[in-house]
Amino acid sequence: IVEPEKHRAYCKPISAVKKGDLIVVGQRGVRVKHPERPREGLGVFEFMNSDVSPEKPVTSLIREIARSLKERAGNGGKIVVVAGPAVIHTGAAPYLARMIELGYVDSLLSGNALAVHDIESALYGTSLGVDLENSRVVNPRNHIATINQVLKAGSIKELVRNGKLTKGIFYQLIKHDVPFVLAGSIRDDGPLPEVVKCSNEAQRLYREQVKDADFVIMLASTLHSIAVGNMLSSRVKIICVDINPAVVTKLSDRGTSQAVGIVTDVGTFLPLLVNELEK
Amino acid sequence: IVEPEKHRAYCKPISAVKKGDLIVVGQRGVRVKHPERPREGLGVFEFMNSDVSPEKPVTSLIREIARSLKERAGNGGKIVVVAGPAVIHTGAAPYLARMIELGYVDSLLSGNALAVHDIESALYGTSLGVDLENSRVVNPRNHIATINQVLKAGSIKELVRNGKLTKGIFYQLIKHDVPFVLAGSIRDDGPLPEVVKCSNEAQRLYREQVKDADFVIMLASTLHSIAVGNMLSSRVKIICVDINPAVVTKLSDRGTSQAVGIVTDVGTFLPLLVNELEK
Amino acid sequence: IVEPEKHRAYCKPISAVKKGDLIVVGQRGVRVKHPERPREGLGVFEFMNSDVSPEKPVTSLIREIARSLKERAGNGGKIVVVAGPAVIHTGAAPYLARMIELGYVDSLLSGNALAVHDIESALYGTSLGVDLENSRVVNPRNHIATINQVLKAGSIKELVRNGKLTKGIFYQLIKHDVPFVLAGSIRDDGPLPEVVKCSNEAQRLYREQVKDADFVIMLASTLHSIAVGNMLSSRVKIICVDINPAVVTKLSDRGTSQAVGIVTDVGTFLPLLVNELEK
Amino acid sequence: IVEPEKHRAYCKPISAVKKGDLIVVGQRGVRVKHPERPREGLGVFEFMNSDVSPEKPVTSLIREIARSLKERAGNGGKIVVVAGPAVIHTGAAPYLARMIELGYVDSLLSGNALAVHDIESALYGTSLGVDLENSRVVNPRNHIATINQVLKAGSIKELVRNGKLTKGIFYQLIKHDVPFVLAGSIRDDGPLPEVVKCSNEAQRLYREQVKDADFVIMLASTLHSIAVGNMLSSRVKIICVDINPAVVTKLSDRGTSQAVGIVTDVGTFLPLLVNELEK
Repeated sequence: IVEPEKHRAYCKPISAVKKGDLIVVGQRGVRVKHPERPREGLGVFEFMNSDVSPEKPVTSLIREIARSLKERAGNGGKIVVVAGPAVIHTGAAPYLARMIELGYVDSLLSGNALAVHDIESALYGTSLGVDLENSRVVNPRNHIATINQVLKAGSIKELVRNGKLTKGIFYQLIKHDVPFVLAGSIRDDGPLPEVVKCSNEAQRLYREQVKDADFVIMLASTLHSIAVGNMLSSRVKIICVDINPAVVTKLSDRGTSQAVGIVTDVGTFLPLLVNELEK
Repeated sequence: IVEPEKHRAYCKPISAVKKGDLIVVGQRGVRVKHPERPREGLGVFEFMNSDVSPEKPVTSLIREIARSLKERAGNGGKIVVVAGPAVIHTGAAPYLARMIELGYVDSLLSGNALAVHDIESALYGTSLGVDLENSRVVNPRNHIATINQVLKAGSIKELVRNGKLTKGIFYQLIKHDVPFVLAGSIRDDGPLPEVVKCSNEAQRLYREQVKDADFVIMLASTLHSIAVGNMLSSRVKIICVDINPAVVTKLSDRGTSQAVGIVTDVGTFLPLLVNELEK
Repeated sequence: IVEPEKHRAYCKPISAVKKGDLIVVGQRGVRVKHPERPREGLGVFEFMNSDVSPEKPVTSLIREIARSLKERAGNGGKIVVVAGPAVIHTGAAPYLARMIELGYVDSLLSGNALAVHDIESALYGTSLGVDLENSRVVNPRNHIATINQVLKAGSIKELVRNGKLTKGIFYQLIKHDVPFVLAGSIRDDGPLPEVVKCSNEAQRLYREQVKDADFVIMLASTLHSIAVGNMLSSRVKIICVDINPAVVTKLSDRGTSQAVGIVTDVGTFLPLLVNELEK
Repeated sequence: IVEPEKHRAYCKPISAVKKGDLIVVGQRGVRVKHPERPREGLGVFEFMNSDVSPEKPVTSLIREIARSLKERAGNGGKIVVVAGPAVIHTGAAPYLARMIELGYVDSLLSGNALAVHDIESALYGTSLGVDLENSRVVNPRNHIATINQVLKAGSIKELVRNGKLTKGIFYQLIKHDVPFVLAGSIRDDGPLPEVVKCSNEAQRLYREQVKDADFVIMLASTLHSIAVGNMLSSRVKIICVDINPAVVTKLSDRGTSQAVGIVTDVGTFLPLLVNELEK
């Protein structure tokens, strides 16, 4: 979209284009300015390149990432976290909750499942009925009971306000006024009241959160990470953690630059990262 | 839900429960009747059990599946296909189109991407701008041009009617009046007019398609396959094909029974299956 | 190693270095000449680059590979196949056997398992006791019985000569006088008499086979493919087929150039390749 | 093998069978006694069953494993570790070295690569020339230089004795007199003097180490873990850690019972485990 009177040109999603908008068609006369890659001081983003492999020294990578995150604290950078439900199943929820408490999360983008499983684990100590302490199936109905609890309260926010939800990721988000967007998907059970059921609307709300992001941390999330990857400008630094090399590769295949892809287990990555952040 | 006056009891998704519905709470007094597993004649479903491994004799599996699909032709069984965009990227679109032509698809469940990539490959011979004959990047703008073509025509159906779309999966679906449902997701570019943007509504429409299904064939689709897996009764036979063992395992982890999980490449699976079906 | 009197310089494995050899130390004064990449006509090797992804159009890749293999037939190129036991488990053995019959294999490099499983499937129709036609466990003792049969005959060659082994990969190799090397490993059951138990000796014999190779086709083999990858000059064209993206990536990570990595299932790849080769 | 005069029957590898041995043929009259599974107190082995999934609560699993390992300390159990080179590449070497120091390793089974990479990282701070602190390629020749250093010293043991090797896994093994067996393979560079080049001999030495093992911990090793898996009696407890679900599944496919399969990254698993062990 070109707005000559404002001397600016920018990108708009197709669905937001309006009649009368001036649009650049073709590539002639267009010059693309890539963000300059500073030669030094980029820390973790400097020493990683596109090759994605599970055989990288993870603990030193985690130290570098912790350093990058700590640095931005003084510089007012915005950190957006995109997280999938495996964060809960792998037992990493308390660590993501801790990151929120420590102020390292400025926005969370996810879906219905993360919220349902997080709240289930806060209320019952299980995730899909599986005890997170000993992997035993305790009660598969906890999943449904959780959804009912939230529906009865009216919203996750209300469940915190009436004192029923007192720990976990969503408790910390609400307590610290960190905005979150839950995008609906066809898989959803429930879904919870905060879930945005229209995909166009969810896309718009996600875009709002990431438009001024400096870091995006993608944690074991395929659907939402790809959605976010499509929205990011080349200026944003991305840290993508997934145990599946194909997911990590897919994100770099799409031309997202300045990305650190780490093939590791989010369930062990987050405890080690939080440990470094707390030092 | 129990409807005493009708002497029946059935399941309803939480979001469809209405005030006044009689619901069974807890497990006391409930007896679950599993579908009997016939001792013989189940073909492919008999000799597969839950262990998912890429090291299975694929060609003989394909022969068995083809035989099962041919058999149902005479018996009026309903085959629902759930397909992900990898069907197009791996060059398997002509083979799925052929299956539709041969009458082996009674309903297709997917999302925006499958349709966009299929129509791009029909109109321009590319998928995301990559030539499907020689893997070279031809024109990344074909993707956007495709979306624009459909938006201009008003719908995929209209693009077929006005003679512009003359081959591919969606051409065959529309030509043979096979119903399809495209569920919206936050990743979507466009999306195309036929895409159902509300996740609850998409769920409802999917459910309608699968409620009387006999076979569900899941092809390289994670999001939509899991959604469908959640909707199926234990009576339905599932064939799940994915190159990622984790996806195939995930579907059986959810307790879906009578499932044949095949860890293979949909890009080579479909040509071999069609070859058997045409014999 | 530099041999001034012969005006040549070449590489030698450390274990083959002898006292008195003149060796280039360091990098100064050394100029590396890479093989020129022809601009056109490379076929499949031209349009593939290093990015490894399961989402490639496989059937057109297979067509290109078949064309490359057919071309070399007239030009006297040497094709070396490295194969892992998954070739048997996935039911692809008859197709590799057919490739040998058609003259597309000039040398086979593998280990004990491929031979044991191939001969078991030729003698009993099973692989590790699993019926390859219907995946049922028939008789786990077939595995041991096979080893005993070969030990009794004295060698695989003898089993063919005395008319007991009449089909499969090793039957075809011996019938068509195609050389093969079986490298021993610590996993081996048996092992069969032809297996080379000393790793240094096996390395030497492998190296002999690949030193004048033009094509190396790696089929679902990690251990032996990496061993071979370490031995190849940059002149050799490599086709690497594996269902695990990590294996395919690993081979390119090692700087092997002119490699086509295909993330697909060898059990469906080989039938389609043989189909193209027979056209 | 039956030895009537000694009233015992046991298994022997085929290659160790001697003329005159009495061998049970067939299954008639044989009764197999499975180890009883205690109802309680098995800790981690109790709550895991065969389904392998990356979506398990890892940190609580690690706590349980640490507890099991600590318990055996008082009971004189033997812990055998099988480790692959990814332990070094992922930066976990210092943590495995620490486990040896703490007395949690009674025997190490591996191959040439683990030793070469470990010693390279101890001598030069790199693994295959890649700096383990910042992932940058420093000097690919460090790999060869390491092999030369060991060859010059005569053995790894000698390199420790002459004061050149002062840290890392093999330093700790030698310092604490922990036996290790390095099995040769066709991939090996060098190989180092301690490597057993004959596969039959390596098998015999491995078998000697595992015959009285109580725990076997398999760390990111395919080749050697499968070899060891084939040798274990059903009495032995196995902990198998790999980022690739197929490897973890493969080990359970072979009927190894009492196995805890964890799909996680050894590079983050070991730091967390050592952390628990030191508590």
